[in-house]
Amino acid sequence: MALFYAKSGMVAVAVDNPGVAESSDLERFGRAPSYERDGFSRYLIDMGWHYLGLSAFQSTQILTWMKARPFIDRNRIALSGHSFGTEPLMAIGVLDPDIRAFVFNDFVCRTIKRATVLTKPSDAGVRPVVNLLPHCVPGLWEWFDYPDLLASLAPRPLILTEGGATRDLDLLKKAYQIMGAGDKISIYYYPKYSDPSTRPDYVEIPEGLDQNEWFQYVNVDHPNHYFKRDIAVPWLSGVFFR
Amino acid sequence: MALFYAKSGMVAVAVDNPGVAESSDLERFGRAPSYERDGFSRYLIDMGWHYLGLSAFQSTQILTWMKARPFIDRNRIALSGHSFGTEPLMAIGVLDPDIRAFVFNDFVCRTIKRATVLTKPSDAGVRPVVNLLPHCVPGLWEWFDYPDLLASLAPRPLILTEGGATRDLDLLKKAYQIMGAGDKISIYYYPKYSDPSTRPDYVEIPEGLDQNEWFQYVNVDHPNHYFKRDIAVPWLSGVFFR
Repeated sequence: MALFYAKSGMVAVAVDNPGVAESSDLERFGRAPSYERDGFSRYLIDMGWHYLGLSAFQSTQILTWMKARPFIDRNRIALSGHSFGTEPLMAIGVLDPDIRAFVFNDFVCRTIKRATVLTKPSDAGVRPVVNLLPHCVPGLWEWFDYPDLLASLAPRPLILTEGGATRDLDLLKKAYQIMGAGDKISIYYYPKYSDPSTRPDYVEIPEGLDQNEWFQYVNVDHPNHYFKRDIAVPWLSGVFFR
Repeated sequence: MALFYAKSGMVAVAVDNPGVAESSDLERFGRAPSYERDGFSRYLIDMGWHYLGLSAFQSTQILTWMKARPFIDRNRIALSGHSFGTEPLMAIGVLDPDIRAFVFNDFVCRTIKRATVLTKPSDAGVRPVVNLLPHCVPGLWEWFDYPDLLASLAPRPLILTEGGATRDLDLLKKAYQIMGAGDKISIYYYPKYSDPSTRPDYVEIPEGLDQNEWFQYVNVDHPNHYFKRDIAVPWLSGVFFR
């Protein structure tokens, strides 16, 4: 992501989630990037925190540093999150009004609904689990789900590059309309689901699904889950430099 | 456990942890007992609770029922926990003063210390993690560790049948002595570690251990981790019927 934004003329700071790549013990042990994330996610929770909190805290320190750089315009700071990176994007977006635009490069769905319907055991008898410990935020579901957090970003410009469940995307559109900012949200589905006349857009999602069946219900073409630079970079340029 | 207590003349109610055996979806899918525990442990945390809370809640309902049975003497109720069953034992013990005695059939150690020193990655590059989600209680480590909970059971009779780290067992002895109940706590190590003259009893435990190395540091003979009926049943009979 950072490379493509930089090539378009923007200052880009690339941030890893904690425990991944350069922020893991990778160098110490010469091992694969994410080997320790589950463990310290659990320990963070026992210690009264959680992985998302640590991730957002870390990025907030970097943002504080960024805002003080002479080569960065603090009135034109955006967050661009891919996949798991969308979670700190939402948390920081809620907490930091200095963030002026958001590139959300993942599909949108309600995690609580996903957890409710993903109940089909695998052939090995194991029930699928929506992404485990690094995604666990104690008590979050008592209050809201991720589409609610996204909706709270209105009226700041937001692009969603991989669609998701139309019902949940409609919630976001409605939030932006309520804030008089219907033109500030841009939604692109995966190409496979971009045509509304053929997209199923289920109203009810039944229990008993496995992961791949869930993806079909929420318009996700999972093999094509990657940073949509052709959509995201021009959009962000347009927001800041139009 | 229940079988051996019943054979000795006591009323015994066998309780599973949630999501295990008859309290899992075992019958529905004809699968192995514990297949779903990790998943719903995570969801419980997101929903503002945790597995230990659910387990202790479930057992508390059973205890309420037990206390109302004419064939149960509510002044002579004990908890006997094996392995993971020791966690609800401690939680219920703290919450319910009607529990008059405790059989703790596991080794005693500080989980926080365990998490701190278990840092050696496996050959596959994976760092060991102290028992995962079903053991995770948000914020617990900010307040205390399991030896502290056990110490708070003093002066009610307590037997520990599989020893553990001598330093942590000494904490328990001290708690019982402070309460004037030094004779109410009984400690048995694994036979392999029962002789103090050959038991290493490390004062310092270094970082960088794997699971088996940790067991050696805390006097655990893991292949012999099972219910010590020859010690536990006569002890409990002695407490209630001496």
